[in-house]
Amino acid sequence: MSVLVVGSVAFDCVRTPSGQADNILGGSASHFSVTASYFAPVNVVAVVGDDFGEEHLEVFRGRPIRLDGLERAPGKTFRWRGEYPENMNEAKTLETQLNVFEQFNPKIPPAYLDSELVFLGNIDPTLQRRVREQIPKARLVGLDTMNYWITGTPEELKKTLAVVDLVLVNETEIRMLSGHHNLRKAAARIHKMGPRMVVVKRGEYGVIMFTQGMTFFVPAYPLEEVHDPTGAGDSFAGGFMGYLAQAGDFSESSLRRAMVYGSVMASFAVEGFGLRRTLSLTRGEIDARFREFKSMTHFDV
Amino acid sequence: MSVLVVGSVAFDCVRTPSGQADNILGGSASHFSVTASYFAPVNVVAVVGDDFGEEHLEVFRGRPIRLDGLERAPGKTFRWRGEYPENMNEAKTLETQLNVFEQFNPKIPPAYLDSELVFLGNIDPTLQRRVREQIPKARLVGLDTMNYWITGTPEELKKTLAVVDLVLVNETEIRMLSGHHNLRKAAARIHKMGPRMVVVKRGEYGVIMFTQGMTFFVPAYPLEEVHDPTGAGDSFAGGFMGYLAQAGDFSESSLRRAMVYGSVMASFAVEGFGLRRTLSLTRGEIDARFREFKSMTHFDV
Repeated sequence: MSVLVVGSVAFDCVRTPSGQADNILGGSASHFSVTASYFAPVNVVAVVGDDFGEEHLEVFRGRPIRLDGLERAPGKTFRWRGEYPENMNEAKTLETQLNVFEQFNPKIPPAYLDSELVFLGNIDPTLQRRVREQIPKARLVGLDTMNYWITGTPEELKKTLAVVDLVLVNETEIRMLSGHHNLRKAAARIHKMGPRMVVVKRGEYGVIMFTQGMTFFVPAYPLEEVHDPTGAGDSFAGGFMGYLAQAGDFSESSLRRAMVYGSVMASFAVEGFGLRRTLSLTRGEIDARFREFKSMTHFDV
Repeated sequence: MSVLVVGSVAFDCVRTPSGQADNILGGSASHFSVTASYFAPVNVVAVVGDDFGEEHLEVFRGRPIRLDGLERAPGKTFRWRGEYPENMNEAKTLETQLNVFEQFNPKIPPAYLDSELVFLGNIDPTLQRRVREQIPKARLVGLDTMNYWITGTPEELKKTLAVVDLVLVNETEIRMLSGHHNLRKAAARIHKMGPRMVVVKRGEYGVIMFTQGMTFFVPAYPLEEVHDPTGAGDSFAGGFMGYLAQAGDFSESSLRRAMVYGSVMASFAVEGFGLRRTLSLTRGEIDARFREFKSMTHFDV
């Protein structure tokens, strides 16, 4: 199976307690696609500007990533500048330049129409829904969102939630979206809005998946150093959906493994600035860390 | 094997967003002993005042809990009054009356000297060490502490840490105690101070155990309602050490199961005010929830 992702491709300037990096390739579609490409073919839908050169495209080459849907528009590529405090918990955005992203109207190339999994990165929910409607045959559609859309365009977001299978949000977001502080109640509320799978990302505390029949926890990998949390959520999504595309089914057993692969990929992502660590991975390293998660969580009954 | 606990027996007045209860039996030794008694015989060392009547002793009767070491002193029993905010994260102490606890000098009855496990509840580290020294043959000694001792009597606490095997602390406490924010580094620092096992309690995010060869995570049971978090940490310790006493060994496999039983018992404890829910349990309910933890955490490799 292949995975389609729609989201941002960006140039990021990031400062964290462990250092800084300027004008590095970032954005949800970049993090998701490179990560998912370790598991399955990925079809990218995004927009870049005139300043996006051959050297940037190099990042995607040699991987099973199709770029037919990477639109080039006149102007500059989306830019984000942010910094993280000592505890690395949440980025403080210092500057956002939407640039070509402002007029982005995602179009799905014919070659992408058989994508069985779709990841709607964190963009305007109206655009997310437009993409979802262009791929009616998709078997699993996942959505990321953020406070900006939850408070800014709640009605549009609700319409979009009604047509997706999976939502990936953090604790603050699920509480805002559902109106419940308790995560179990919050997830039950989201299930009623449409998505039958809810993944709650809790940063250093790991992730939880709620379906109607299952609650499943994965801790965050206990790193000694986090260099750059940017893209951790999209890397999780890339590992999660990429693994499901590889597995070819959405059984409970595959969903559990997908949660672990998502956690594995997020843990690698934060070990380096931008895509540095993710780009250097081997499947052997990924599978070794996957097995470490087993030893950190399993016990005999 | 039997477990000895030294700690407080108290009357608590607790207010939480879900209600309030006045003058209920509390204190670390009460929560620990009732919880651990589902698994193994418990020997209590604590002090109560004249106001501690037969009706309060009833709570311990009919369970494998020895009270030879429950000293009765002239005066009033220790009292604590506190309340929890909406998110239930941390109690705000409104009043503490040490009463008979102020002059507490724990003495170990001869009948307790063969206790193989010892839990040093959160009291003055000098008293903790004095207890530990009275039971030289103990095979596993666990210690709880708090910010008050970490900042107030750091040198005494260090001496006590040097003679225990296990420390149970929360995230704030381990960071203060070790001087490291990163939990992996913090645990490595604690290992150097003496305890070969470090358990970090993260409230709604569960618990982690660090030994020199193992990192093991257990999530918190996802309850829809938390009625009263008081005693959750001591209930965890009671389930953890009680299970180890029942198992009769401290193998890695037993330590993992002990972490889960601790989490099971803490999850029940917070379902009711004070000891209400814990007192009503059956071993069948405990084991059923233990199996639920497996289904919430296991995956096929």
